[in-house]
Amino acid sequence: MFSRTSDQGMGRLTPEAYPAVLSDLLASELSSTGAPVDVLICGMAGARQGWLEAPYLDAPAELGGLAFAAVSPVMPGSRLLPRILPGVCQKLSGAEDVMRGEETQLLGLSAMDPRFSGLVVMPGTHSKWVNLAGARIERFSTTMTGELFEILRTHSVLRHSVGDETGAADHEAGFDAGLASGLEAPQRLTANLFKIRAGSLLSGRSHGWCSGFLSGLLIGTEISGQRDWIGTGEIPLVGGTALGALYARGFAMIGAGTRIVDATEATLAGLKAARRG
Amino acid sequence: MFSRTSDQGMGRLTPEAYPAVLSDLLASELSSTGAPVDVLICGMAGARQGWLEAPYLDAPAELGGLAFAAVSPVMPGSRLLPRILPGVCQKLSGAEDVMRGEETQLLGLSAMDPRFSGLVVMPGTHSKWVNLAGARIERFSTTMTGELFEILRTHSVLRHSVGDETGAADHEAGFDAGLASGLEAPQRLTANLFKIRAGSLLSGRSHGWCSGFLSGLLIGTEISGQRDWIGTGEIPLVGGTALGALYARGFAMIGAGTRIVDATEATLAGLKAARRG
Repeated sequence: MFSRTSDQGMGRLTPEAYPAVLSDLLASELSSTGAPVDVLICGMAGARQGWLEAPYLDAPAELGGLAFAAVSPVMPGSRLLPRILPGVCQKLSGAEDVMRGEETQLLGLSAMDPRFSGLVVMPGTHSKWVNLAGARIERFSTTMTGELFEILRTHSVLRHSVGDETGAADHEAGFDAGLASGLEAPQRLTANLFKIRAGSLLSGRSHGWCSGFLSGLLIGTEISGQRDWIGTGEIPLVGGTALGALYARGFAMIGAGTRIVDATEATLAGLKAARRG
Repeated sequence: MFSRTSDQGMGRLTPEAYPAVLSDLLASELSSTGAPVDVLICGMAGARQGWLEAPYLDAPAELGGLAFAAVSPVMPGSRLLPRILPGVCQKLSGAEDVMRGEETQLLGLSAMDPRFSGLVVMPGTHSKWVNLAGARIERFSTTMTGELFEILRTHSVLRHSVGDETGAADHEAGFDAGLASGLEAPQRLTANLFKIRAGSLLSGRSHGWCSGFLSGLLIGTEISGQRDWIGTGEIPLVGGTALGALYARGFAMIGAGTRIVDATEATLAGLKAARRG
């Protein structure tokens, strides 16, 4: 087992470009053996705009069956044998949803903790809230929290108010104020957002404070808007450590316990489990 | 009285460029008289990034006093005598807000209908909800509905799902579905947005339907999120006719009556009333 990372992915590659990128990435491993090399892939390589479209499993979905539904792109003349794992979709009317990559992390989580049953939250560009029972996805829901943060601070009128000073002294105060607003009134998100603009014009709020408020407001809104998903058990937060800590703060404000699960560990555990089948 | 329009404004002009643009726009009127010409201006020309910053009146604010708080940019050698009307701000902690331009439309509304008292909704890039009593702004709130629509359809993952086909047959069906979702669960906006992406991937929803859903979802969320502002009286919707009709549809879904007030008429009535003092 080994790990290689690359910034080459769906956002940058045409389908035809994947084989060369993969061969380059695994060149030293290929040279150390004369045998074929299994490559198990999850995530956006299986999207319609990726390498080769992998079908979705329908939720409720048994993740033990992930590898059976994998697709195999061909790499003529190569000893690499790539397989791309499927994503999971939910066709329930009014609750249509899709995931790619998170299903593998969830399989990893269930491998690490086979008796876990309950809510899993996976913060990110498109955060996932998932009811997991063992290795079975019962239902899930996506919120666009991370992407909204990015486009609001880059393209909206709020770009004049926020800045990159995430380390600024009052970033944390802004974050807590935003979190409280979002938790208290998630139905007012589109109005509360403008408070950032007004706050910087009227109260001289700093860029750091406003950035913190925007982040806290969106996370608080996500948590409060889906409060009915939260049970009594500890909630695994699968994601980066820094982002996980921000969500943990939000859940703590409403009395929900959490633990952070590293996303890379969960992915690797999931790929191993899928390979074992 | 006459009317001239131009696409030159705060977004395009430096402060130094305003005098020449205004002189050009009013050239024929200037040549028809040898006397000085009063010019009353409202809106973003008075913003910090505009021509000359005009102060805000504090809400609650008596709009009869608008002209007293105007600022006068100097135009040496010109017979034009420009005055820029102030905006209105609200410093109430947790409800900080600002407007520029809408205060003049509200003064116009009160001139057209002096006995009106109640909620006024002004749909737009930054929609305003205002409690107006005669010519007095009691309180107001801004929602970023129009701007969110624009940045989501341009910059988010939803750009793959929506299109410009606002005339498409199923645009209206999408709009009504989005409106119903927003009205029912405004606290779930950030999750409901992703249903557009999932709907186009799983159910083959057209670009027209998705555009309609996005528009309806944001408008429904705005209306429902501020439902506690709605009383029993008919609500004037001050804005463009097409956008006003979409909001009217949303208010009708929850049993609230509305009437559309043309924004340009309201602005002109407001400028006349401000000039009378």
